[in-house]
Amino acid sequence: MNAQLREPTMTVPQPVLSAQAVAYASIANVAVGFDILGHSVVGPGDRAEVRRIAEPEVRIAAIYGCADALPTDPRQNTAGTALLALRKALGLRHGFELVLHKGIALGSGMGGSAASCVAALIAANALLERPLPREALYGFALEGEAVASGSHHGDNLGPMLLGGLVLATRERLLRLPVPAAWHCALVHPHLVLETRKARAALSGDFALTDVVAQSGNLALVLAGCFRGEAALVREGLKDVLIEPRRAPMVPNFARVKQAALDHHALGASISGGGPSVFGWYECREDAQAAATAMAAAFAEVELLSDALVSPIDGPAAHLIDTETYA
Amino acid sequence: MNAQLREPTMTVPQPVLSAQAVAYASIANVAVGFDILGHSVVGPGDRAEVRRIAEPEVRIAAIYGCADALPTDPRQNTAGTALLALRKALGLRHGFELVLHKGIALGSGMGGSAASCVAALIAANALLERPLPREALYGFALEGEAVASGSHHGDNLGPMLLGGLVLATRERLLRLPVPAAWHCALVHPHLVLETRKARAALSGDFALTDVVAQSGNLALVLAGCFRGEAALVREGLKDVLIEPRRAPMVPNFARVKQAALDHHALGASISGGGPSVFGWYECREDAQAAATAMAAAFAEVELLSDALVSPIDGPAAHLIDTETYA
Repeated sequence: MNAQLREPTMTVPQPVLSAQAVAYASIANVAVGFDILGHSVVGPGDRAEVRRIAEPEVRIAAIYGCADALPTDPRQNTAGTALLALRKALGLRHGFELVLHKGIALGSGMGGSAASCVAALIAANALLERPLPREALYGFALEGEAVASGSHHGDNLGPMLLGGLVLATRERLLRLPVPAAWHCALVHPHLVLETRKARAALSGDFALTDVVAQSGNLALVLAGCFRGEAALVREGLKDVLIEPRRAPMVPNFARVKQAALDHHALGASISGGGPSVFGWYECREDAQAAATAMAAAFAEVELLSDALVSPIDGPAAHLIDTETYA
Repeated sequence: MNAQLREPTMTVPQPVLSAQAVAYASIANVAVGFDILGHSVVGPGDRAEVRRIAEPEVRIAAIYGCADALPTDPRQNTAGTALLALRKALGLRHGFELVLHKGIALGSGMGGSAASCVAALIAANALLERPLPREALYGFALEGEAVASGSHHGDNLGPMLLGGLVLATRERLLRLPVPAAWHCALVHPHLVLETRKARAALSGDFALTDVVAQSGNLALVLAGCFRGEAALVREGLKDVLIEPRRAPMVPNFARVKQAALDHHALGASISGGGPSVFGWYECREDAQAAATAMAAAFAEVELLSDALVSPIDGPAAHLIDTETYA
């Protein structure tokens, strides 16, 4: 067999036409930062497969997983709306086809709608000729989130985009320091509480004394995180503003919260709009013991639940298994 | 001349029977921390002379300075009430006689009532057999402050006790870091605005959207201070909650504030309950230029004013000229 001599071939960069990303659950509000503070957790996630298509549109090919009849009209879907906003802002000629794999239960208070937005955006971003930095995706994610909740709030989106504990105002994201040893317990009772209903419970204005107390609590928690001082966080991690109005929507809340507090908690409250409940701890062992006790308290009212323990400084959403086509 | 040989005399510690202290003006609220955030300034101060007396009482011998008929009944006087609270808590057998020299104009929004409390407490504390740490005086100061304003708020007291920028919740004080180069401009128009009236303007509840925006602003300012990042403070140092309700009480406020903002300000708002107005700057030169412009804006409406420039990380109250009697 004679080897044939050939000219060396040039390697032509192939456009990436398909990408997948996963965004993990998060705890929003964190007792003191309604709509502005949240952190991601090592736990369930939503996965998005995005394919670049020639048609100038966004279409949702399928939604799998723990999703009960989520809308596949992109304008009514959080992830679809986020991709539409991305297309429009960048003036893209091509479109996206999206397949969602929902891993986060809907109406759980763990940021399921935000996770779909973020996973879809991160996958779609990888298909752009010039991918944007994470922070630049935030505005599109807010558009998507608003479809689900009726409000532009980034306290789930921010932690999913950047990882860890994140301050999320309307205009910007800022990752905050948290000691690596600090963990949370997050217990999700098998019960759906729609974000819109959880927000409706907050209608009506707030008294200045409560606003001042809550501001002081927020300041203590932030100072405690910046200084790595558990005592400051323990003093401040209390929700006097929102929790009193939402607690009646979480079955057996008082006992679940007490179970969380009973294990040397820095504090405990409702995760996002509920019904999930979280506690913060200085070490994994305390968080583990609390999670078990919190699940037992939900069981007292015949509720099954999933319990997880995670560093508070949890993971950011990320790409998985990106394929390149010719 | 023959030198006489003597036995060395023992030095007997003499009880300190009189002390003086000064507490400097402060800027409370600081746009984003209503009732919980404030900082002291290099500027006017209230001075307290306190004498230890055998009688088990607190009496106010005189009040000098810029005080228009302040009550000398200790129960109606902020400093008197603070000393009564100190006596009661420690179960002191002796009493205190107090002379106040008011250097901070009443109703100026610069913490005049707080300064009298703090100066009196620091002087009285020096007369105790076992003086307390600064933080331990805070509760007594709160009792005094409540006499003047009808509310227990420590955002003037905290900075005066500890110096610098201080987070003051009902339960504790925490000094926050601020870059040494950052300065404030503080302009006091000659006009009295009673703290009680300034607080009455805040009656009525607050909308959640404003509370959320203000929380985000507070978080940005705190993060900016901890990280020493002016950009974060500039983004957050805005009062969307309190200033809109109080602005009508400060003559020509919009133009005074704009004058403050026009000199590269990090932000500007009403100092305490007003009518004084402050701005924050990254350097002394900008603060100086702003102070001049702010005073000119007050002059447009025929108001004389005092303008001062100070590091934000201002001074703590301190003892002066303590005398020892036999």
